[in-house]
Amino acid sequence: MKFKVRMFPIKTDRYIVIMNQDDADELGLLEGDRVRVIYNSRKSFVASIQIAMGMIGKGEIGITSCIGDVCEIIESSEVEVIPVAKPKSVEYIKKKLDGGKYTKDEIYSIIKDIVSNALNEIEITAFVLSSYLRGMDFDEIEWMTKAMIETGEILTFDRGIVVDKHSIGGVPGNKISLLIVPTVAAAGLLIPKTASRAITSASGTADTMEVFTNVNLHIDEIKEITEKVGGVIAWGGATEIAPADDKIIHVEYPLAIDPKPQLLASVMAKKGAIGAKYVVIDIPTGEGSKVPDVKMGRELANDFVEMGRRLNLNVTCALTYGGQPVGRAVGPALEAWEALKAMEERRGSASLLEKSLGIAGILFEMTGKTSDGYAYAKEIFNSGKTLEKFMEIVEAQGGEKIKADEIPIGDKVYKIKSNFEGAVVGVDNKAIVKIARTAGAPKDKGAGVYIHKKKGEIVKVGDDLITIYAEKDWKLDNAIEVAQREQPVLVSGMILEKYPSYRYV
Amino acid sequence: MKFKVRMFPIKTDRYIVIMNQDDADELGLLEGDRVRVIYNSRKSFVASIQIAMGMIGKGEIGITSCIGDVCEIIESSEVEVIPVAKPKSVEYIKKKLDGGKYTKDEIYSIIKDIVSNALNEIEITAFVLSSYLRGMDFDEIEWMTKAMIETGEILTFDRGIVVDKHSIGGVPGNKISLLIVPTVAAAGLLIPKTASRAITSASGTADTMEVFTNVNLHIDEIKEITEKVGGVIAWGGATEIAPADDKIIHVEYPLAIDPKPQLLASVMAKKGAIGAKYVVIDIPTGEGSKVPDVKMGRELANDFVEMGRRLNLNVTCALTYGGQPVGRAVGPALEAWEALKAMEERRGSASLLEKSLGIAGILFEMTGKTSDGYAYAKEIFNSGKTLEKFMEIVEAQGGEKIKADEIPIGDKVYKIKSNFEGAVVGVDNKAIVKIARTAGAPKDKGAGVYIHKKKGEIVKVGDDLITIYAEKDWKLDNAIEVAQREQPVLVSGMILEKYPSYRYV
Repeated sequence: MKFKVRMFPIKTDRYIVIMNQDDADELGLLEGDRVRVIYNSRKSFVASIQIAMGMIGKGEIGITSCIGDVCEIIESSEVEVIPVAKPKSVEYIKKKLDGGKYTKDEIYSIIKDIVSNALNEIEITAFVLSSYLRGMDFDEIEWMTKAMIETGEILTFDRGIVVDKHSIGGVPGNKISLLIVPTVAAAGLLIPKTASRAITSASGTADTMEVFTNVNLHIDEIKEITEKVGGVIAWGGATEIAPADDKIIHVEYPLAIDPKPQLLASVMAKKGAIGAKYVVIDIPTGEGSKVPDVKMGRELANDFVEMGRRLNLNVTCALTYGGQPVGRAVGPALEAWEALKAMEERRGSASLLEKSLGIAGILFEMTGKTSDGYAYAKEIFNSGKTLEKFMEIVEAQGGEKIKADEIPIGDKVYKIKSNFEGAVVGVDNKAIVKIARTAGAPKDKGAGVYIHKKKGEIVKVGDDLITIYAEKDWKLDNAIEVAQREQPVLVSGMILEKYPSYRYV
Repeated sequence: MKFKVRMFPIKTDRYIVIMNQDDADELGLLEGDRVRVIYNSRKSFVASIQIAMGMIGKGEIGITSCIGDVCEIIESSEVEVIPVAKPKSVEYIKKKLDGGKYTKDEIYSIIKDIVSNALNEIEITAFVLSSYLRGMDFDEIEWMTKAMIETGEILTFDRGIVVDKHSIGGVPGNKISLLIVPTVAAAGLLIPKTASRAITSASGTADTMEVFTNVNLHIDEIKEITEKVGGVIAWGGATEIAPADDKIIHVEYPLAIDPKPQLLASVMAKKGAIGAKYVVIDIPTGEGSKVPDVKMGRELANDFVEMGRRLNLNVTCALTYGGQPVGRAVGPALEAWEALKAMEERRGSASLLEKSLGIAGILFEMTGKTSDGYAYAKEIFNSGKTLEKFMEIVEAQGGEKIKADEIPIGDKVYKIKSNFEGAVVGVDNKAIVKIARTAGAPKDKGAGVYIHKKKGEIVKVGDDLITIYAEKDWKLDNAIEVAQREQPVLVSGMILEKYPSYRYV
């Protein structure tokens, strides 16, 4: 059937066209069924239908602008609409739900259909849950990873040793890439780091880097800058690297699940697609992180190494302490400040420096630069080359040189003080993130939390525990309320209890 | 934050409000996150956000008319928007995915959140898949059923014995309710039958009944007509009986799954909500139906009886033959014609009459009317009281008296003839439905398939196997193509193979 186009500028992750109820009935279609829309006589895309009343007349079809942008469809032009059957990949997903195993071809079909929007949210949810409940073996994960790489953009470098690092996340304040990338690049390795923005955290590496410079780089720019200065820190979402991943994350987010097969494939696909040959995977472990105990961390590490072997990627995993935030700052500008301040002063929070230089050091050892990577990294850092290289990268991405103390931090400030004397026995990752997000992070770059006292530190009555920064009064007020409810820093007297509790007489 | 309303008349099963990217960032919301929209100072609803570009300005909020109709929100009015946390029920669903068991309170929360749109499609999919993969015990199913009843409209009758029947579906041409309801009502029982429209079939009972009369009845009308004439055949979707069911079906449909706990709860909730005390459940069994073998049918029957016991509902299950269509007609008008013709002539296809009168008979035995229900039902049918009562029901619902041969059938006709001599060894349910739907059913009421030869009947070369009816030439052409590809009626020579295959010399 022929339809007249009406454009709607709604951005959505779902490919949707809007149709009149009569037309849908005529074509025998229910809400959510798929159609192929053919335009300019030859080009086409597949979308799900949504039924409209009143807004869309008979013979009209509403097309959302995201699709329109890609397809160059124009208002009032004529398109042909043909119902299309459910894709075969739905059957494969059902087979897996029923306990079967994917073949290589099946998993490629599924990933292709995810990327081309042929699978809807309900079907992608079933795909993710089938992995969550039925698991995948290494063959299936390998095929899924390769399919994810091949359905997206791929970076290749003509010369040089390409390395990368990845943190699986779950620990706040993890701004280590800002130190690792320039340290590694300063030693002559290539590190084209693509990073994510915060989904549920207070600041993703891309959000933090954006305090300094542009992170929305095209894949060609990532290549060009990496070849020029040795490293880059870009937002992966601006590229088309492993695009299936974003759509998978979109259904994982509401359920707060991250099945191991998807986690492995997501990380390895991104590293494979940028042409890395040596990769360190940071697995933060501990209470309140994604991996609560070391045993689980080791299992995951083994899986990453095996996947690396299959993908011809040299992988080392670092189990790191994730039971409290890394460094003391949480939130885009505060984390940017903490990272730059450390580079300027060549000292800083032990958890930040040891972790960053330790991971850079592993990369140096893997690539044969040295047998004592940590010392080598520390030497580069202490020499000022890390800072120098960082500024080169910032400038290459379009930013300007800046000093740490020039970074604007939110001017609405509130300090939470201790009512007790004692030692800090816990800093609650989730509470810290909640406070920082309520204060406005990551959208308000200057919002966040600075932690004055971390685990094991001694506290007196009236000492500052955390400072909350915000850009807006109402957000600060809400964040204070959250902080008072959540107990982000737990102080305990050195004597926890006394036995016997009666006094001697 | 305050927003100015802009109305969009998009009908959707999802509660969505459309927001500018900046405003979403300001509130810390991602696409799909939930907000509470407060209007007229006090009323409110929860919806997911969709991000718009261009169409919606800063400070504006787009509201779809479905929500608007319910809420009486008007264009340009001011509403307050507050982010709301993910509902607790998402955690309960995760617990179940991880192998746990629901408590009563948990399952009530989930069903309430489904009805109030607090759970999105991804989360409802996870709920349905958790049942599919983890199952539920009888306690959980009982709670789910009761929650589904209590979150919707409930019918109560002051006098009379309320009975009902339900077919779990999967067999085409199953127009038996059109005979059962008037037969049962003619005997003085009350039977307020709510029926569904076709989702994947060629005609639901509601579609077939709509050939005669209005089926979009409000729950008060169902009660009034049932009290007046003893029975009704209404579309359940026009009521708010067990409204959670529709939203569950919405996510089951793309995956073509129907987990047993949901099936049991869906049927029992609808029967419980209309106040039935005696219920017959028709379980069509056989190749190409929902229940392929008798063993599975018996298990399901046991489950229904147990659920009946828990809900204080007297349940009898009838395992019926579902390996080929019931009667000979498939499609709304054709089925209406076949049912009415049988009532007029007091004879008809054995599979239709035996099944209909058999099930009516079970209800007569359950309610103590007689010890030979089938004979009792046949007597009513043969006396002409079934036809008389049927016309009373049609008129009470707003239709007019009609003769079977006055029912308009599609005038585009094509006959598929046999190329072989032999016996029919199979009639393919799925192929018959596909042909009927391609011909235009259920939207084009006159479209469908008439089956001339069913299993065991003898066929000569050139005999009609099926006739395809359509209202439009292009749909007839497509249906013919499907029919030629699918082999809906399989004819085999009486001698299937010959051993030895060489000729004697």
